[in-house]
Amino acid sequence: MADHGKAKRGIPPKSDFNAWYPAIVEIAELVDKRYPIKGMDVWRPYGWKAMRCIDALTHSEMERTNHEEVRFPLLIPEDLLEKENRLVSLLKRAREEGVDPSELRVEEEEAGFKKEVYWVKHAGENDLDVPMFLRPTSETAMYTMFPLWIRSHVDLPLKTYQIVNTFRYETKQTRSFIRVREIHFFEAHTAHADEECASRQIDEDLEIVRRLMESMCLPVIISKRPVWDTFPGAWYTIAIDVIMPNGRTLQVASCHHYKDQWAKAFDITYQDDTGETQYCHQTTYGMSERLLGAVVGMHGDDNGLIFPPDIAPIQIVMMPVASHKSDAVIPAVNAAAEELRKSGYRVKIDNRDLRPGQKYWDWEIKGVPLRLEIGPRDVENGNAFAARRTGGKEPIPLDDIANSVRKQLEIIHDDLQSRSQTHVSECVKRLQSLDQDIVDGQIYEIAFDGSDADAEKLEKSTGLAILGDAMEPFDEDQTCIISGKTTRRRQHIARMY
Amino acid sequence: MADHGKAKRGIPPKSDFNAWYPAIVEIAELVDKRYPIKGMDVWRPYGWKAMRCIDALTHSEMERTNHEEVRFPLLIPEDLLEKENRLVSLLKRAREEGVDPSELRVEEEEAGFKKEVYWVKHAGENDLDVPMFLRPTSETAMYTMFPLWIRSHVDLPLKTYQIVNTFRYETKQTRSFIRVREIHFFEAHTAHADEECASRQIDEDLEIVRRLMESMCLPVIISKRPVWDTFPGAWYTIAIDVIMPNGRTLQVASCHHYKDQWAKAFDITYQDDTGETQYCHQTTYGMSERLLGAVVGMHGDDNGLIFPPDIAPIQIVMMPVASHKSDAVIPAVNAAAEELRKSGYRVKIDNRDLRPGQKYWDWEIKGVPLRLEIGPRDVENGNAFAARRTGGKEPIPLDDIANSVRKQLEIIHDDLQSRSQTHVSECVKRLQSLDQDIVDGQIYEIAFDGSDADAEKLEKSTGLAILGDAMEPFDEDQTCIISGKTTRRRQHIARMY
Repeated sequence: MADHGKAKRGIPPKSDFNAWYPAIVEIAELVDKRYPIKGMDVWRPYGWKAMRCIDALTHSEMERTNHEEVRFPLLIPEDLLEKENRLVSLLKRAREEGVDPSELRVEEEEAGFKKEVYWVKHAGENDLDVPMFLRPTSETAMYTMFPLWIRSHVDLPLKTYQIVNTFRYETKQTRSFIRVREIHFFEAHTAHADEECASRQIDEDLEIVRRLMESMCLPVIISKRPVWDTFPGAWYTIAIDVIMPNGRTLQVASCHHYKDQWAKAFDITYQDDTGETQYCHQTTYGMSERLLGAVVGMHGDDNGLIFPPDIAPIQIVMMPVASHKSDAVIPAVNAAAEELRKSGYRVKIDNRDLRPGQKYWDWEIKGVPLRLEIGPRDVENGNAFAARRTGGKEPIPLDDIANSVRKQLEIIHDDLQSRSQTHVSECVKRLQSLDQDIVDGQIYEIAFDGSDADAEKLEKSTGLAILGDAMEPFDEDQTCIISGKTTRRRQHIARMY
Repeated sequence: MADHGKAKRGIPPKSDFNAWYPAIVEIAELVDKRYPIKGMDVWRPYGWKAMRCIDALTHSEMERTNHEEVRFPLLIPEDLLEKENRLVSLLKRAREEGVDPSELRVEEEEAGFKKEVYWVKHAGENDLDVPMFLRPTSETAMYTMFPLWIRSHVDLPLKTYQIVNTFRYETKQTRSFIRVREIHFFEAHTAHADEECASRQIDEDLEIVRRLMESMCLPVIISKRPVWDTFPGAWYTIAIDVIMPNGRTLQVASCHHYKDQWAKAFDITYQDDTGETQYCHQTTYGMSERLLGAVVGMHGDDNGLIFPPDIAPIQIVMMPVASHKSDAVIPAVNAAAEELRKSGYRVKIDNRDLRPGQKYWDWEIKGVPLRLEIGPRDVENGNAFAARRTGGKEPIPLDDIANSVRKQLEIIHDDLQSRSQTHVSECVKRLQSLDQDIVDGQIYEIAFDGSDADAEKLEKSTGLAILGDAMEPFDEDQTCIISGKTTRRRQHIARMY
């Protein structure tokens, strides 16, 4: 029966992840890829609801930490981009020459970002005087306004965020949620009195990330990216990589400490309490629809998606069984659903006139964490029959149903968490020497404290990329895998998406 | 004191509406107009929160009526626009020639929509093969996908909606919320089995509109637009116009019955229960950030905004008074706030170290409906002192505060409703003959059943525009103001935004 269904619905086995992933996002009706622009999918209701559930967690974290939601225009005039480009080239040269950026002057602008944006140069039948581009992110748009909003130290910290559509002219192969051209994007931008205050913001961001990843049961590695992989304009970048089932890492979020580099380019200053004018220190924190891609990829199985309860668009699907045999079934289902909704759960009653097997299969594909069946005998016994998407079935009392359901969802959450942990321990292995074989689908933990040339050698020899310094270094001295230096720097190398 | 404040904060008197409106949207921190693209404002946190409160009402109405939220790409390939243009020119010619559209063939395409859109013809350093434009609305994008989603009658009705950014290359003078180039836009698109089912959808839309207008206390005229003012591609258009304080009407929403016109252009068909292929009948329903513009314009006064309680970003501001004189004040304020939040109210505690007058003034400008002050004596008496933004103050018991606050907010809601009704009766007058003087700021109700030439004469003579047929015709026979025909058709003429 299940095999027949699989064949019928065309879900490849998850072991063939590169076939499974693009198939399941359409079969589970998250997106439709048939829109006539490549890399711009249509979000179908179920997929969009899942994304909105993730956004709701984000909004609630932002509220908890006193960020304010703003909404900036999508279009950015070209001249602002030039400001950004000058900053980026200057920082690049400073790095290459090993000097402080403030010692350098910009001589010529480079075209880094221009390669990645969509341009609006025409409107109606007119050529625009100033070309505009679709935001890839909003630094330039926001930092044009920040000087108007920040006057003195009492205006700091300024903590803003928005959840918007951003655009990237992607030339690589696109993949739903993971590599797209219109991106559903979260970006927080903050301004602070000094470097230390900005650093504390990064700490707060990482705490938020950890809470979100916990809710989504996602296994992550958090690393300070190497200099060459730092976001342009940033002092340093901390990236959050999810370990996907195939052992590749997917960067789902990043935090950037800008120091006063952008503030100097955009003249973002404040008067301190002595009346002196100071440059602000800034941070950003970004996440995208890749979070949903990670949830899909990490938790699904051969039978479809599995949503962690915290972000499931439907947390509980309720099935009346044999309701033609007893008038008590439908009222019991409705009463339980009502009770659960009152407790804040997202509930769907499936009273379609289909065979139960067909219905089970539909909700299995869609990854609804908990199915509750109620038939005539269940009503008599005062029970609902609970089936968890992660496996396991048992009757639970209809009396105090909200509490029983809470416990069921906790079990599912814990199941997904422990699978994630198992996945990490299976995927991440220690690499002690370059003589060791590199196994496809493995991520390696290494002691590394070498030069850029050593890094290049390491990446070339392993065919993997350096994720950067893990947040927790080794407890004891180790030997750098390339340079042989004594070090506690713990890093990871992996194949990145 | 109040006058000093006004001068200081630069709020012009509301009687000078054309000066008051653009000033208050910035003074109340709804938007910042200093972004370097004209007609693209930055939404500040307070303004965005207000818009999100309006959106929340819309989402809840959509959920109640079983619409599903989708999200379509922003960019639309040019060739889809050409399909739309062909449809529009065909309908135009059919009207001009007085024949059924199905009898005509499209000979040449016109460029109607092309004049109003922003074009993306370049990405990175490349010219795009197919130019794309930023959606002005999403008919073409959506109706490209609908044929893939609709197969048989069981897939109908298809009821979808989205709340997105849309774009219009506006050449007229821009005005925050009212005439902008990036528009925060709600659009519902539905497909039905036949014309009658689609008509029932229009009825549902109008019921939703009425509920929303009730929540926002907005005085509206609902009219079936004349043929020449029908949305391109629509069979008929029903528009919802708010009567602004200066007597001009602002179209905040519209519903369009498309019959099977778009379905024929985009080949949207289904198999009926006899297996026959039929064209779908479609409707759309649109609203925009103009709703917020109407709320700002209609309810504000010389002292600032007044938000109707249902959509106020902050419904209740709580002020501890003389808390240095009693340790009981702050806990009492916190407890009351907690209680109110639990009941679902949006509450702000203002514990800034400022003079009370300054604080009052701030929240008055921002239009918070209810202010609750709690001082040492209030705590002793078990009261909070409630001041309504619409006028009136009284102590209310801290015990059962949620219930007392609900009553206060109802009074405010009713005040705003009755002001709206007064405004309608002051603004809308009967025009019996063209000899009557046309007074600036008046809207005229007329009996009109004339030809297009008569309509032109009417508009020319009065300097006003015909809004169209009111939903309720006259109860008794009247004489058409131009043609002298006997008619019950009740119409309005007004100066439109």
